Amino acid sequence: MISLDDIRQAHFCIADGIRRTHCEQSTTLSSIVGVDLFIKFENMQFTASFKERGALNKLLKLQSDGCNTGVIAMSAGNHAKAVAYHASRLQIPATIVMPRFTPNVKAEDTKRLGADVVLTGESLAEAGDYAQQLAKEQDLTLIHPYNDPYVMAGQGTVAVEMLEDVPDLDVIVVPIGGGGLISGMAIAAKTIKPDIKIVGIQSETFPAVHQLLRGEPVRVGGSTIAEGIAVKYPGDLTLEVIKSQVDQVLLVSEEVIEQAVSAYINIEKTVAEGAGAAALAGVMQHPEYFKGQKVGVVLCGANIDSRVLSFILMRDLVHQGRIVRLKVLIDDSPGSLSRVAAMVGDLDGNIIDVDHQRVFTHVKAKEATLSMSIEVKNRKHGQKIRDALLSVGYQAILMADE
Amino acid sequence: MISLDDIRQAHFCIADGIRRTHCEQSTTLSSIVGVDLFIKFENMQFTASFKERGALNKLLKLQSDGCNTGVIAMSAGNHAKAVAYHASRLQIPATIVMPRFTPNVKAEDTKRLGADVVLTGESLAEAGDYAQQLAKEQDLTLIHPYNDPYVMAGQGTVAVEMLEDVPDLDVIVVPIGGGGLISGMAIAAKTIKPDIKIVGIQSETFPAVHQLLRGEPVRVGGSTIAEGIAVKYPGDLTLEVIKSQVDQVLLVSEEVIEQAVSAYINIEKTVAEGAGAAALAGVMQHPEYFKGQKVGVVLCGANIDSRVLSFILMRDLVHQGRIVRLKVLIDDSPGSLSRVAAMVGDLDGNIIDVDHQRVFTHVKAKEATLSMSIEVKNRKHGQKIRDALLSVGYQAILMADE
Repeated sequence: MISLDDIRQAHFCIADGIRRTHCEQSTTLSSIVGVDLFIKFENMQFTASFKERGALNKLLKLQSDGCNTGVIAMSAGNHAKAVAYHASRLQIPATIVMPRFTPNVKAEDTKRLGADVVLTGESLAEAGDYAQQLAKEQDLTLIHPYNDPYVMAGQGTVAVEMLEDVPDLDVIVVPIGGGGLISGMAIAAKTIKPDIKIVGIQSETFPAVHQLLRGEPVRVGGSTIAEGIAVKYPGDLTLEVIKSQVDQVLLVSEEVIEQAVSAYINIEKTVAEGAGAAALAGVMQHPEYFKGQKVGVVLCGANIDSRVLSFILMRDLVHQGRIVRLKVLIDDSPGSLSRVAAMVGDLDGNIIDVDHQRVFTHVKAKEATLSMSIEVKNRKHGQKIRDALLSVGYQAILMADE
Repeated sequence: MISLDDIRQAHFCIADGIRRTHCEQSTTLSSIVGVDLFIKFENMQFTASFKERGALNKLLKLQSDGCNTGVIAMSAGNHAKAVAYHASRLQIPATIVMPRFTPNVKAEDTKRLGADVVLTGESLAEAGDYAQQLAKEQDLTLIHPYNDPYVMAGQGTVAVEMLEDVPDLDVIVVPIGGGGLISGMAIAAKTIKPDIKIVGIQSETFPAVHQLLRGEPVRVGGSTIAEGIAVKYPGDLTLEVIKSQVDQVLLVSEEVIEQAVSAYINIEKTVAEGAGAAALAGVMQHPEYFKGQKVGVVLCGANIDSRVLSFILMRDLVHQGRIVRLKVLIDDSPGSLSRVAAMVGDLDGNIIDVDHQRVFTHVKAKEATLSMSIEVKNRKHGQKIRDALLSVGYQAILMADE
């Protein structure tokens, strides 16, 4: 098992290759969630995630062992970028295996960082099998994304820096996928400050560690925006550390993860991917657990697809009541649409889309349903617009009311 | 006229109240634009813009003069937040006048920062007149957003910090609205490093300073996402400095501003508003002007509406060719849609919306037009899907081709 010494050694070794990211208090988020909140901005690493720490520590170990025939990793995500970037810096040949369905942009990004990218396999498991086979055939060293002592020690350096910057943290909150980050961080933090609490966060769709700690059968799967922690089963090394060192594992819903991504954009003006926002989501979803404490959350990655981010921002406006959807029954006659639109506009509602449906509604042949997305000041403003329509005789429903 | 001494004095005075933001090299953006690019992250101020520097310097001057009856400002943007936040910190009563049409969220944000907000007037000019009237009636001191020596000196501190961090910058690129930021920065930078170039950036819709420098009549106006620099006319103090100290003013299009906002999100993982991204847009749109030089851009603000940011991210995907729109003529018969959708899916195209139009197309009664937005790997991939449809006899057009 690794120790704080291993982690301090890792910190010394990787110092030249990674960014000493900031750990800063967020006044606004603190007041929203009711804790004294500090954020570790690991999204500011060059490849936008903490994964560089573990990958670089492992690569330096391999290099000092004289192993220069090359490395291989299976990942379509942040581990791929981290290995590609640092192997290239150290002039170690790197091959990254990704499943065939990986979005092109991820493969291109990883190639640009200097790795050979092999797209193969219909699943992560198949790609993983292929990577192992290739490692044997070509005498390459496989760098595991989490179940490796050097990787764990590298990730543990995040906690060393957080406690250097904010020595009196009561709790550190860390997303759990395979468990590499939390296991390294827990060993570091608990050795430096034995009374600190370490809380892990998993998404409700991939709660493997949460289930294992409760002795429940592992049942995971489903769609999640927190791809980076959508891991089916933790490593045996990481699980052992989690069992002995982690105080609590809490689950977060997809909805709250989305809200946390939005909060990072709107309040901190910084980008988080789903998994990167999971720690903040944990505090937002379980405020009673953290109330009044000095809490450090790791914003551990920012590689999010623009399209996904775009949808999250729009959905958050709906969630906040700043975009409402209003359904109005109108006469299917000239001027009907204009009269309704004029009423909405006069009340300062900004119509952003309209669907005028005549055929597929349960209405009379001479009527039609008008569905509008309207930008409003807040939920009350939306209700005011609906009420104004009702007051002159329209049938109008706010969709959130249904 | 202010001097470097005034700016250094301002820097000393405001140091406790503002963040010493980072000025960091961007490896990736440097290689994209072909310069050695450094970014000054002024979006990391508490209220997310550089405006705090000038506002705080002015407030401290008023306080040291014993003027504590209160201050007033007219702004619906970053100046409002800056004055509200620092006046509240210094326990100086602040009133902010905003035009009546100001989005509710801006008024609420400014109230939350501790100011009284008055919504009045149908235009910025009317709101400005009212602010002046209220200042007289209630003996309040009006804090101008740019045409004030103390405000200009405060903004100038941005250049002092940039040259402390990167002393050998060849050029500093600064957005111009009213001219407060560039005039303070130009005086500071040219005094510290006389051979440095100062380049101002204006949007094509509001090029007042660009026109004035060429002796052209000032003609501005139109829709812009760079609201923060949508200023009709610069101040007389700021214009005087610009005339003598600024080497060049370049214009940027709305399209390139949007691309710069996207680049900040996708590459730097940080949020910029339109005006905040204007300096980077300037370098992106005029690469030949900056080629090979060490260029510092000021990312001066991050207060952007989520909905606008969401649209920019989607439009950027279209611009990059990662979302294409394909129009296909199909038989209006069972199975037609499914056959086309299957072909698109088999070629790894991800259909994200469909519009199936029968009535308003110039086609025969038994045909229909299918318009699809499809997420693809790149433009070539979109063409491959179109070609596949053409090859089996469909009429198919990529909308960008039209």
